Amino acid sequence: MLIPQSLAYALLAGLPPQVGLYASILPLIGYAVFGTSRALAVGPVAVISLMTAAAASRFAGQGSAEYITIALLLALISGVMLLVLGLLRAGFIANFLSHPVISGFITASGILIAVSQFKHILGVSATGHNLVEMLRSLFSKISNLNNQTLIIGLVSIVFLFWVRTYAKSFLISRGLKERSAAIIARIGPVIAVIVAIIYVVALGLADQGVKVVGDIPKGLPPLAIPEFDAALWMSLLGSSLIIAIIGFVESVSVAQTLAAKKRQRIDPDQELIGLGAANIAAAFSGGYPVTGGFARSAVNFDAGAETPAAGGMTAIGIALATLFLTPFLYFLPIATLAATIIVAVLSLVDLGAIKQAWSFSKTDFAAMMITILVTLFIGVEAGVFAGVILSIALFLLRSSRPHYAIVGQVRDTEHFRNVDRHNVITSPRIVTLRMDESLYFANARYLEDVIYEKALQSKTIEHVILMCPAVNDVDLSALESLEAINERLHLAGIKFHLSEVKGPVMDKLKRSHFLDDLTGDVFLTQHQAIQTICGNAFDAEMEYHL
Amino acid sequence: MLIPQSLAYALLAGLPPQVGLYASILPLIGYAVFGTSRALAVGPVAVISLMTAAAASRFAGQGSAEYITIALLLALISGVMLLVLGLLRAGFIANFLSHPVISGFITASGILIAVSQFKHILGVSATGHNLVEMLRSLFSKISNLNNQTLIIGLVSIVFLFWVRTYAKSFLISRGLKERSAAIIARIGPVIAVIVAIIYVVALGLADQGVKVVGDIPKGLPPLAIPEFDAALWMSLLGSSLIIAIIGFVESVSVAQTLAAKKRQRIDPDQELIGLGAANIAAAFSGGYPVTGGFARSAVNFDAGAETPAAGGMTAIGIALATLFLTPFLYFLPIATLAATIIVAVLSLVDLGAIKQAWSFSKTDFAAMMITILVTLFIGVEAGVFAGVILSIALFLLRSSRPHYAIVGQVRDTEHFRNVDRHNVITSPRIVTLRMDESLYFANARYLEDVIYEKALQSKTIEHVILMCPAVNDVDLSALESLEAINERLHLAGIKFHLSEVKGPVMDKLKRSHFLDDLTGDVFLTQHQAIQTICGNAFDAEMEYHL
Repeated sequence: MLIPQSLAYALLAGLPPQVGLYASILPLIGYAVFGTSRALAVGPVAVISLMTAAAASRFAGQGSAEYITIALLLALISGVMLLVLGLLRAGFIANFLSHPVISGFITASGILIAVSQFKHILGVSATGHNLVEMLRSLFSKISNLNNQTLIIGLVSIVFLFWVRTYAKSFLISRGLKERSAAIIARIGPVIAVIVAIIYVVALGLADQGVKVVGDIPKGLPPLAIPEFDAALWMSLLGSSLIIAIIGFVESVSVAQTLAAKKRQRIDPDQELIGLGAANIAAAFSGGYPVTGGFARSAVNFDAGAETPAAGGMTAIGIALATLFLTPFLYFLPIATLAATIIVAVLSLVDLGAIKQAWSFSKTDFAAMMITILVTLFIGVEAGVFAGVILSIALFLLRSSRPHYAIVGQVRDTEHFRNVDRHNVITSPRIVTLRMDESLYFANARYLEDVIYEKALQSKTIEHVILMCPAVNDVDLSALESLEAINERLHLAGIKFHLSEVKGPVMDKLKRSHFLDDLTGDVFLTQHQAIQTICGNAFDAEMEYHL
Repeated sequence: MLIPQSLAYALLAGLPPQVGLYASILPLIGYAVFGTSRALAVGPVAVISLMTAAAASRFAGQGSAEYITIALLLALISGVMLLVLGLLRAGFIANFLSHPVISGFITASGILIAVSQFKHILGVSATGHNLVEMLRSLFSKISNLNNQTLIIGLVSIVFLFWVRTYAKSFLISRGLKERSAAIIARIGPVIAVIVAIIYVVALGLADQGVKVVGDIPKGLPPLAIPEFDAALWMSLLGSSLIIAIIGFVESVSVAQTLAAKKRQRIDPDQELIGLGAANIAAAFSGGYPVTGGFARSAVNFDAGAETPAAGGMTAIGIALATLFLTPFLYFLPIATLAATIIVAVLSLVDLGAIKQAWSFSKTDFAAMMITILVTLFIGVEAGVFAGVILSIALFLLRSSRPHYAIVGQVRDTEHFRNVDRHNVITSPRIVTLRMDESLYFANARYLEDVIYEKALQSKTIEHVILMCPAVNDVDLSALESLEAINERLHLAGIKFHLSEVKGPVMDKLKRSHFLDDLTGDVFLTQHQAIQTICGNAFDAEMEYHL
């Protein structure tokens, strides 16, 4: 079952079919030795294959020997990166790929992958690395389409789609047990491959322009050490990093889901090392970048894979197939492989996620749409990059203008709440501002602006109190702003106080000169602050809100 | 008083002296019309002059016509950028220059500026844009030093340093009133200039290799429209942006300090527009990038500048000087101007800030040191860039691994506190985790890791409660993580609950499917959660901590 999948993904990556097989053998062993998930199966997957194609074709033409070398180098460099990140326990960098970015990227990749396979269904040659280029190339070639190829392609798509969606319930309705029906439904792609081969052979279609897989070199992968070319390696660093991180995110997500079913845990940093080893193994055995895939892992899991040896068994199976089965795949039509890919990646396209993001948060929606649009219309790496930068920028932007409130005392209590929402009393001599965020460089100047605005709005103000129950940290920039506020309010004849400062923040402030220079006091509670400043005068001078 | 300063900064920027004068005339008017500070005086300042030199000399040799054009274009492009940022009310982007980065950058710039002027003191020609280049170039030329120049330079430095540091108290001790002493101390640089000119003229030193200012074209600045060369403009965008933002930060800081003294406020977004107008005015009148400087503004302020007209008066003064005074400056030795710069920038070097950062926070210290080292040893733009990137990265890193605590009930209360710090009771069936940070993409996966680790550590655990009093926001990535946690804990037979969720977060969760799928409940308080889950069994099964 993994054989046609591996061939199909190699096709998607623009590589000879055997590269897909090679990438399914040694990497499995590499992961089994170092990884933590007992059920995860690594090998070629759709999105990483697409990214490999996008990166490699910038440096060499598909089909050339350099192209194969570059795919192999991408596996090697991203493998080393994963390994180093794992040893540094730096798996957290994957966290900066936010969910909307990953989700948007995978949806856009699914569309790109499906469109990239249309040429094989139509039996034409076309190129391009984004939607516009691909469609333009397809339309210019459409007059050359091969009818027999189109028939095989369309029938394969319809059959595979039916197998995927309806076969299981159909078989159950015919009286099969659920388990047997599930197994038969899962080997649907194998049936499609066998039928397609028989059809091509029976009608002699390989001579009528229907492209077939052809000769796959028999034998085990060549164990070879990739050549070192510093300039080429340097130029592959960016692509390798993106491939490494996307692969890691995909793999960890699969591994965590499988592990949870067994009440097991995986160690993300150890996973980095396992995936790194798998990719390095791929590089030394003629493969290309690999990662943990959901489909192949689910097979393992359902078969009850409980030990890392399961990976070894699968590897041996594929090795045997590579040794003995490849002659039978000679007449497998490319169109059927393309159909396998198209049906597989349609499940990646998740339009519901776009709707969900829209209703949940506009900033998340923006990050997702930018990722989708840039991926589709510019390219896969640019898409990931734009999404990550935008997510971080939007997050920083939000935290740079935190929520704040001018507060007053709720009548007959010691509570202080927002003057705009509650029935509170304040003194015209005092402004109390509550900042609902840690104070750091991105919001320090905003804090200054807000305080100056509130403090200087009336000539009656003599005291400003900054209420800090939500301030978990103060950095040096915020400290400077507090000092500037203190000094400038002092110049304006206003005293500056703090209240409800948390212990760790107070410890930090004590290490600076701020508390020595502070014109006012630091109060344990806001109530105490008002009592101390106003004394008994508060009742006489209070103003009512709401 | 502003005349020698303007000449000196033009020298620092590698520009002919009149450019410094031109940059002190129309920009003042431009700012006076659009700016909000009544006392701020814009014109050439040290750091911006250094940055102009660094940017312009990448494209043309100092002294060439192209060099002058590029300085002018930098003023124009950064002026337009400031204007656009102001119209978009996007002044907040300056917030991402954290205090350690600005402070480190100014200290390093001060050192670079001082070292760059050594060549004028020694009377040799030297080049270089970072410390290593400058020192290497100086040492290779040191044998050519001009003795008379060195004498003038050293005497000027000693005199100016004395004037700056001791003159005021010396004059007061001689019986002068404080105000008169301050005024005389402040005109010290003018005295130095006059004495230096007389000295050079008297001994005829201009013919003995002492470099003098020479001919300054008499007359007002040429009003000219810079040529448009798209490729050149594009390549200046990065430098212009950095100049614009550094200039803005410096200017706003000065303006806020002056405004606070008068209990006035400035509007940062309007300041952007004012500075933008000033720089555009500089570009159209043969100047170079300008910003609000502390020294020149302090003069305005002390003179009681209360209206924007003060800027106009200063502009007219400098215009008159440019028309009539320049012939007298012919014999002004460059070494004296260099001494003016060196003494002025020494006050920028703030080694105390480095010590303060070290004691206050190691991350702030790291950002500051990287900025200083990169600025000194690579260059000014790289220094700012490295500092900003590192500050943001360190902030994201901190917030990606927030503080959390496993909590238990403080005996005989309804309070729940950290099991490691307090005398609390817990149930072996329940894990309660309190996350002390908003949940967003950078910490969402960390949340998952922590929960899986805590939940799957013991077979007795049936319930996981996430306590959310410190969660101000949940983004889509965190929502996905919560859903994954819920699903995976469900697969492991564990129920997932939330407690003490804030109103706005709850509103957001209600817009998703999360609450429908949640295997457990959402409790108003943690106490209620424990009561509901355990009922009366809690007393029987509790475990003691500490």
